[in-house]
Amino acid sequence: MAARKPTRRSTQGSAEDRLIARHFRPLATHPGARALVDDAAVVAVPKGYELVLTTDAIISGVHFFPDDPPEAVARKALRVNLSDLAGKGARPLGFLMSIALTREVTDRWLKKFTGALSADAKKFGCPLLGGDTDRTPGRLAVTIAAFGTIPRGKMVRRDGARGGDRVVVSGTIGDAALGVILRRDPGAAKRWGLDRTMRAHLLDRYLVPQPRGALAPALRRHAHGAMDVSDGLAGDLAKMCRAARLDASIDVARVPLSRAARAVLVAEPALIETILTGGDDYEVLAAVPARKVAALRKAAAAAGVALTEIGRFSAGTGQTRFVDTQGRAHAFARAGYSHF
Amino acid sequence: MAARKPTRRSTQGSAEDRLIARHFRPLATHPGARALVDDAAVVAVPKGYELVLTTDAIISGVHFFPDDPPEAVARKALRVNLSDLAGKGARPLGFLMSIALTREVTDRWLKKFTGALSADAKKFGCPLLGGDTDRTPGRLAVTIAAFGTIPRGKMVRRDGARGGDRVVVSGTIGDAALGVILRRDPGAAKRWGLDRTMRAHLLDRYLVPQPRGALAPALRRHAHGAMDVSDGLAGDLAKMCRAARLDASIDVARVPLSRAARAVLVAEPALIETILTGGDDYEVLAAVPARKVAALRKAAAAAGVALTEIGRFSAGTGQTRFVDTQGRAHAFARAGYSHF
Repeated sequence: MAARKPTRRSTQGSAEDRLIARHFRPLATHPGARALVDDAAVVAVPKGYELVLTTDAIISGVHFFPDDPPEAVARKALRVNLSDLAGKGARPLGFLMSIALTREVTDRWLKKFTGALSADAKKFGCPLLGGDTDRTPGRLAVTIAAFGTIPRGKMVRRDGARGGDRVVVSGTIGDAALGVILRRDPGAAKRWGLDRTMRAHLLDRYLVPQPRGALAPALRRHAHGAMDVSDGLAGDLAKMCRAARLDASIDVARVPLSRAARAVLVAEPALIETILTGGDDYEVLAAVPARKVAALRKAAAAAGVALTEIGRFSAGTGQTRFVDTQGRAHAFARAGYSHF
Repeated sequence: MAARKPTRRSTQGSAEDRLIARHFRPLATHPGARALVDDAAVVAVPKGYELVLTTDAIISGVHFFPDDPPEAVARKALRVNLSDLAGKGARPLGFLMSIALTREVTDRWLKKFTGALSADAKKFGCPLLGGDTDRTPGRLAVTIAAFGTIPRGKMVRRDGARGGDRVVVSGTIGDAALGVILRRDPGAAKRWGLDRTMRAHLLDRYLVPQPRGALAPALRRHAHGAMDVSDGLAGDLAKMCRAARLDASIDVARVPLSRAARAVLVAEPALIETILTGGDDYEVLAAVPARKVAALRKAAAAAGVALTEIGRFSAGTGQTRFVDTQGRAHAFARAGYSHF
């Protein structure tokens, strides 16, 4: 309404139609997307399977920096959703995208955005099914709803952990949160004594999440419960504990850190709190029975993902403890970062 | 990142968790929504059925007025998506919602919003499956992805029309576009000689779409093709014609108008263009073989929806003609409104 513009009469349709045809149609490789010429997509779910559904939005200035490259925005928009599917043990099927473009978004920006999105859709086997394109006087925002398939009844639940299960986490923790500090304060690299590679690693871990979809089949087989770590290890572990009505104790020395994060800690030990509570890790946090940890770790290694046992769940009321090598519990000033 | 706020440590979780528990959990009545305590929803699609998927966002100042009541914003957000499902012949299954809240949104606003959304979810049999809640420094926006089921292979397609099919439309056309004019220029009511009821009708038709889900089964049975009319009758008919590679000719005198719209036309005949090209009708436009029009109209009437035959499709190249009682074609200055 307020921002409505009359459209040119054209056999090619409106400006939105042309933009969709030019930029988004090449991504709609799933037959159910109907080349984006229908009003809805249609997909079949294989017999014996269910559909797993999730949605996450990223907003400029909230979830990414306004000057992030369009390729990174595209990857983050899709990957934060793929990370949710991975944590549930689901296999990607496709996604819907609603994009709110500001007037400043150029054709060149969009071309880079859709190019990277297209590459990711192929890489992760998750084609565009449909979408919605708007101009906004507000912030650039990309909202994706992603869908995956899972054998019936096999979704790996957040509340599935049982007392005695091991707390297991993929990859490394805290890199992205340190990457955000570096983005805001480039001088920190020098203060922390980071070399070029370490600095690039932290920045990249913030810019481009690495969803752990390769873990999905092994999670279904070996984990009692799982979720992706997006709001900080401490906060997300607390969510798992509350859901399962269990306590968890984490051995901080065992939390997997990158070479860069270890260098940062040497220079500034207090940043352990940022590492453990900062967000944007997009790793998988799982509750795994002790006897299955080795099998899960082996399956993960075969899929190219490191997996580390960092603690255990026990009977309790939803409390988490992060314990140092002297057996002292960390007291965090804040449990987690929130985009909210 | 930029807008991140540290969260209070709490066994109830973050501010977002509490907001979800308070406002959104009551809407998550589908067992697959897992009471919003998991990271994803899981749904089964009945045997012999497929899933129809669609997404539409509404943004403050673009798709609704910033001072629209929260109840109307909620209804519009869901109903524009339900209208898409209706046009495809699908039966609602559930929806995901991503909501970007501004700092100005109060608890009271949210309570009204979710109250109305909850009522609509019940009314249309479309429960909340999951979602995402963010704070935005930009515009309030609600993005919904809605899902429906349909017997395998039976989605009513936009490109299904055949030469000779009748052009059929539900309800009345143009009310919402006139309602927008009234919102911007309340004096128009007097100029147009509208009584209180007519004025309220036009305003309401803009505020609260009436998705025609009741038509879905009959569309599957009787229509060759269909879509919902959201971007104006002329523009959406042109889309159908381009998709099917057909022409269509519309008898303007037969386009169904409300008593209020007819009154407006008496006062200001030029507004026929606004009526035919304005958006937000959320009616169903269908291509129906001549021999099936009566059966479809009867089924629609039984479902409480009026259906009018307004023209026909013919062999062609995607052109549309709107013909007056003297046989002259309307030349529109613009083919349709676009939020884009």
